Amino acid sequence: MPTVRWLPSHSGPKANRVTNDDLKMFDLKAYLARKAQRINQALAAILKTADEPDRLLQAMSYALLAGGKRIRPILCLAAAETIDGDSQEVLPAACALEMIHTYSLIHDDLPAMDDDDMRRGQPTCHKAFDEATAILAGDALLTLAFQMLASIAVNKPEQASKWLRVIEHISHAAGYCGMIQGQMLDMASEQKPLTLAELKSMHRLKTGALIEASVRCGAEMAGVNSDQIQMFERYAQNIGLAFQVTDDILNVEGDPEIMGKAVGTDEQRHKTTYPALLGLAESKAFADQLVENALAALDAFDQKAEPLRAIARYIRHRNR
Amino acid sequence: MPTVRWLPSHSGPKANRVTNDDLKMFDLKAYLARKAQRINQALAAILKTADEPDRLLQAMSYALLAGGKRIRPILCLAAAETIDGDSQEVLPAACALEMIHTYSLIHDDLPAMDDDDMRRGQPTCHKAFDEATAILAGDALLTLAFQMLASIAVNKPEQASKWLRVIEHISHAAGYCGMIQGQMLDMASEQKPLTLAELKSMHRLKTGALIEASVRCGAEMAGVNSDQIQMFERYAQNIGLAFQVTDDILNVEGDPEIMGKAVGTDEQRHKTTYPALLGLAESKAFADQLVENALAALDAFDQKAEPLRAIARYIRHRNR
Repeated sequence: MPTVRWLPSHSGPKANRVTNDDLKMFDLKAYLARKAQRINQALAAILKTADEPDRLLQAMSYALLAGGKRIRPILCLAAAETIDGDSQEVLPAACALEMIHTYSLIHDDLPAMDDDDMRRGQPTCHKAFDEATAILAGDALLTLAFQMLASIAVNKPEQASKWLRVIEHISHAAGYCGMIQGQMLDMASEQKPLTLAELKSMHRLKTGALIEASVRCGAEMAGVNSDQIQMFERYAQNIGLAFQVTDDILNVEGDPEIMGKAVGTDEQRHKTTYPALLGLAESKAFADQLVENALAALDAFDQKAEPLRAIARYIRHRNR
Repeated sequence: MPTVRWLPSHSGPKANRVTNDDLKMFDLKAYLARKAQRINQALAAILKTADEPDRLLQAMSYALLAGGKRIRPILCLAAAETIDGDSQEVLPAACALEMIHTYSLIHDDLPAMDDDDMRRGQPTCHKAFDEATAILAGDALLTLAFQMLASIAVNKPEQASKWLRVIEHISHAAGYCGMIQGQMLDMASEQKPLTLAELKSMHRLKTGALIEASVRCGAEMAGVNSDQIQMFERYAQNIGLAFQVTDDILNVEGDPEIMGKAVGTDEQRHKTTYPALLGLAESKAFADQLVENALAALDAFDQKAEPLRAIARYIRHRNR
């Protein structure tokens, strides 16, 4: 049976750090593409355990390597680089976050939950395989995230406490007190309209918690101090909410071709959304304000925070 | 939002160790009852985070606190005690193993998988709640197991490496290379009969891996040496298989009242089982031999291994 492997570092520590020179002409599109490629390579290497993958591994790879924006792992790397961290060292945490995000998509798409047919521009996992395989592929990606983190950490005793904190943050954000509770509340909201406060709280759990953990884990792995951690938290909370408000807006006026999934589904399911509660114009103004707050939280950082700043703007103005 | 809590140790280290005097008149039934009670109390305390539990927590508690034999956590404690370990220190690992076992039962029982209506003498989680809640309650128990281990370990830096190894063993045993792969193979076996070698391999993954991890984690937390670890492994492999052979036998001739679930289901589903491949009498002889092997593996240990020995015999002669 294959075991978890991890890519060796191909470059010295220097090469994995961002310099201010790199950022003078900051090009977000190129940055996102470069980071996504690095993450995709690492994820592919983790799953490349057999020449002829069995059905379970096929389903895990199908969902995990289907593209996607890779926002969470990129946030993790960008937060580390903001305080001069070594992004190679942070890469396992970044991959774990994407594996957990993907597992949550597989399970949320199931017929018993959101019953979605398309995801990331291809049939959802249970459509391409079957329900049982999709449930187990999700379970396996969740478990593999923790296995990968633990097996890397076991070989780095001097970093053991740091990795344990990463496991703690990610599991807390992904679990009962975070993402899973958010999905429960989201499903319940199809039966009963939410107030604005309830909607915010639901999103903070469902999407916000893992986004906050992404930023936090990157920062912690890079040796963040207690003042900085508060700035990162404020940034992450604001972009987490901005991400969701924008998602709701895109569900109203997005292009399903570009998004790789259906639009108008929130209204069909009678879901409480920001556009439904605030109207479309005010939702956009709210999302803008959140991005402003996120940018303000980064005021004390230098040019190395440019990727985080650009991601905040991108989250609001993306079209998928 | 509630966070994970952990029971403080109520007694000094001495009180958590087994003495040879305790074992002169070894009474397995009382031992199992005592340990199960301790585990049940610890599990209840972990989930007792709110006076009015929400629906997700209700479903998690419903499945986790429904009884069950608690064989995995008891094996974990008994392995530690065999080499003079402090069972209070091992208790979190024991609880994590039971949480993961329970999550696997919830998911395996789903309509898309084994589609079972009864479990541990009560309706399965998706029958008592609904499918979506059952999927999420399983996800949440799996995630909580790792969260609990990490948050305990974060506060014990001197034990960080030990806890990371525990997380690694458990996630490896529960994941793609272990239990989840076993469930995939088990489902596939309904379509296509297995050979004896394939059947053994499937069970080693589906049930054996987590049983082996239970014994191993208990032993490692207690500071096992490399000679001893091999004995523990041989013991665990043999009881793991004996457990499954006995399960198959009970599915033929067990009492559904006592077992709290239906019997005869393997034949209905055309599953390859030991009785189907070897016949009932030879299956029993095989299970007996496995228990003999398990007992022989413990020869070098003193009376403190009595619980492990008695559990090996019990696994073969249980009626549920």
